[in-house]
Amino acid sequence: MTHRIAVIPGDGIGKEVMPEGLRALEAAAARFGIDLALEPFDFASCDYYLEHGQMLPDDWFETLKDHDAIFYGAVGWPEMVPDHISLWGSLLQFRRRFDQYVNLRPCKLLPGVKSPLAGREPGDIDFYVVRENTEGEYSSVGGRMFEGTEREVVIQETVMTRTGVDRVLKYAYELAASRPRKQLTSATKSNGIAITMPWWDERVKAVGERYPEVSVQAFHIDILAANFVMHPDWFDVVVASNLFGDILSDLGPACTGTIGVAPSANINPDGSFPSLFEPVHGSAPDIAGRGIANPIGQVWSAAMMLEHLGHPDAGRAIVDAFEAVLSEGDPAVLTPDVGGQGTTETLGRAIAARIAG
Amino acid sequence: MTHRIAVIPGDGIGKEVMPEGLRALEAAAARFGIDLALEPFDFASCDYYLEHGQMLPDDWFETLKDHDAIFYGAVGWPEMVPDHISLWGSLLQFRRRFDQYVNLRPCKLLPGVKSPLAGREPGDIDFYVVRENTEGEYSSVGGRMFEGTEREVVIQETVMTRTGVDRVLKYAYELAASRPRKQLTSATKSNGIAITMPWWDERVKAVGERYPEVSVQAFHIDILAANFVMHPDWFDVVVASNLFGDILSDLGPACTGTIGVAPSANINPDGSFPSLFEPVHGSAPDIAGRGIANPIGQVWSAAMMLEHLGHPDAGRAIVDAFEAVLSEGDPAVLTPDVGGQGTTETLGRAIAARIAG
Ligand SMILES: CC(C)[C@H](C(=O)O)[C@@H](O)C(=O)O
Ligand SMILES: CC(C)[C@H](C(=O)O)[C@@H](O)C(=O)O
Repeated sequence: MTHRIAVIPGDGIGKEVMPEGLRALEAAAARFGIDLALEPFDFASCDYYLEHGQMLPDDWFETLKDHDAIFYGAVGWPEMVPDHISLWGSLLQFRRRFDQYVNLRPCKLLPGVKSPLAGREPGDIDFYVVRENTEGEYSSVGGRMFEGTEREVVIQETVMTRTGVDRVLKYAYELAASRPRKQLTSATKSNGIAITMPWWDERVKAVGERYPEVSVQAFHIDILAANFVMHPDWFDVVVASNLFGDILSDLGPACTGTIGVAPSANINPDGSFPSLFEPVHGSAPDIAGRGIANPIGQVWSAAMMLEHLGHPDAGRAIVDAFEAVLSEGDPAVLTPDVGGQGTTETLGRAIAARIAG
Repeated sequence: MTHRIAVIPGDGIGKEVMPEGLRALEAAAARFGIDLALEPFDFASCDYYLEHGQMLPDDWFETLKDHDAIFYGAVGWPEMVPDHISLWGSLLQFRRRFDQYVNLRPCKLLPGVKSPLAGREPGDIDFYVVRENTEGEYSSVGGRMFEGTEREVVIQETVMTRTGVDRVLKYAYELAASRPRKQLTSATKSNGIAITMPWWDERVKAVGERYPEVSVQAFHIDILAANFVMHPDWFDVVVASNLFGDILSDLGPACTGTIGVAPSANINPDGSFPSLFEPVHGSAPDIAGRGIANPIGQVWSAAMMLEHLGHPDAGRAIVDAFEAVLSEGDPAVLTPDVGGQGTTETLGRAIAARIAG
């Protein structure tokens, strides 16, 4: 059985880390006998937009919908295309139209990566953020009135549905139930955002009745963010709305020093459409073009993709490989962000060699 | 001239830290010859709610509107009264009806306070979060439809007005212009929250035209939260919407280890109604009743209040006093959260004695 993978490098360092993501993927495929068909696409990038006036071709949905997964680099080049155009025209379309309603992001303290937090060791921090990925605060409903006058009012609606919330809660409860600590933390703000969030709390309770083995705790988002810094060891699985999950899944990796190397999976759990795998980092215009971007976010995303496609052993081998390379700490191999003088390619090649065994 | 101050202890540790806040306030008033009329009120607390079925008496607005300031403890007791009832029935009413449209919170690394961040020294981190405090994501517009069915939809509107946004931006620009670094950071999320936040960005630019001396930078809230952890030294004045400001003003103090001691000022800059001063911490049911809550949040709020009332020297004396007591680090005086075995009262008395000189 061949897995058809759409490969979309996107913008900026996306184009630089993607070759190393593919190198790791191919090394793992060779070692574990996995048959991959990799198809590159140049759309969903700002270059494509500048040429075509839109981020995606008209037939993008048809073109991509039968792939088994999308392997994405990074998108956005705000100097040329405003972010809300590039993002709503690409990544946010994929998430919504392919119903990738779970955004899953590991927050893990890795060997050899310096955490900005004092006194934390690898093993101390190891949790997942499960983010709702299709609705909530990221809505397209609203607008401006009395535009350009002193009376100007701008409104945007947060829209939550029982279907949308219950299914991501179910995913989070099941993930929590599968882990040794069996702990779920819900991000709320029912004291201030007093219409949607009290209802979110009710759904957390209602869905939780089916998972008596999972212990649940809710924190308001303000103090939860604070606790990511003060007590990152408290967390096992954290479930959050689209916006809160967005914030927590950058903050979590920041606390583990891995914002430049964290991966994310945009998952359609029932498999009706392809899931999408991408690093958490963006296109990073400030370092793009210099060949020094850390490719581990892309490589780790490849591991999550292989796991999702039914090859957990191959995914594990990739993670083991980059953890080993990080532990060794050879400055000639590592990129500058993790203390080396190497390049995207030296680090990517070292990881691929390790995967090959 | 007498300053009329409404004193509202509220719930939980609010009732324990308030006496120490008053002790500091009275010590500073005596030393600097400030005439204060302190009037205590028992409403805006969950005890009051349980007795009266509402958080505030019907005439609260009349009762409080001519005071020069409100000195608040903490509110909330979720086991007895749901947070959205206690908060929307008290604090959030005050902020809105008294048009306290600026919420100002210092994030400062203090001597003797342990920061969870590695390698940061007092002096390294010293910035303000300026939060919009009356509108935005904290709206009362929205509701539920198809309630109790699978089709259930819940909507809440974020409402931003030009009046509301421009005035808080003006405050933030002026604060930045008054500081040596003259730097303003705007919290946005225009790539995802694509109706309100691109407009927020436009207002930041438009209002900024009047402050050419201030350098402005925008970060999306996800990476901004991450940068609070990774680069807290980057920031001088950070301006944010109601929700983003809420998150950042807990996260900032968490990064400086001061979440238990940070103050906040809810300011009505034109003085048409009283401003409100309160610690950032809540009522803390987990430690309430034990006499061990750190009173510095309340004491520091007193300092902000005196500064607001036109007595910056008295405010400064209070801050100097608690910084000195923290630096000395006498375990018999300090509360457990800052490494001592003392009580709310031992710490409060030590600070007041130091203020008296
Ligand atoms: C208690 C809550 C409603 C409040 C808020 O969200 O504004 C608090 O977190 C704060 O920051 O003052
Ligand atoms: C680029 C942006 C629209 C996106 C988001 O907010 O979802 C990104 O921050 C992410 O987390 O994937």
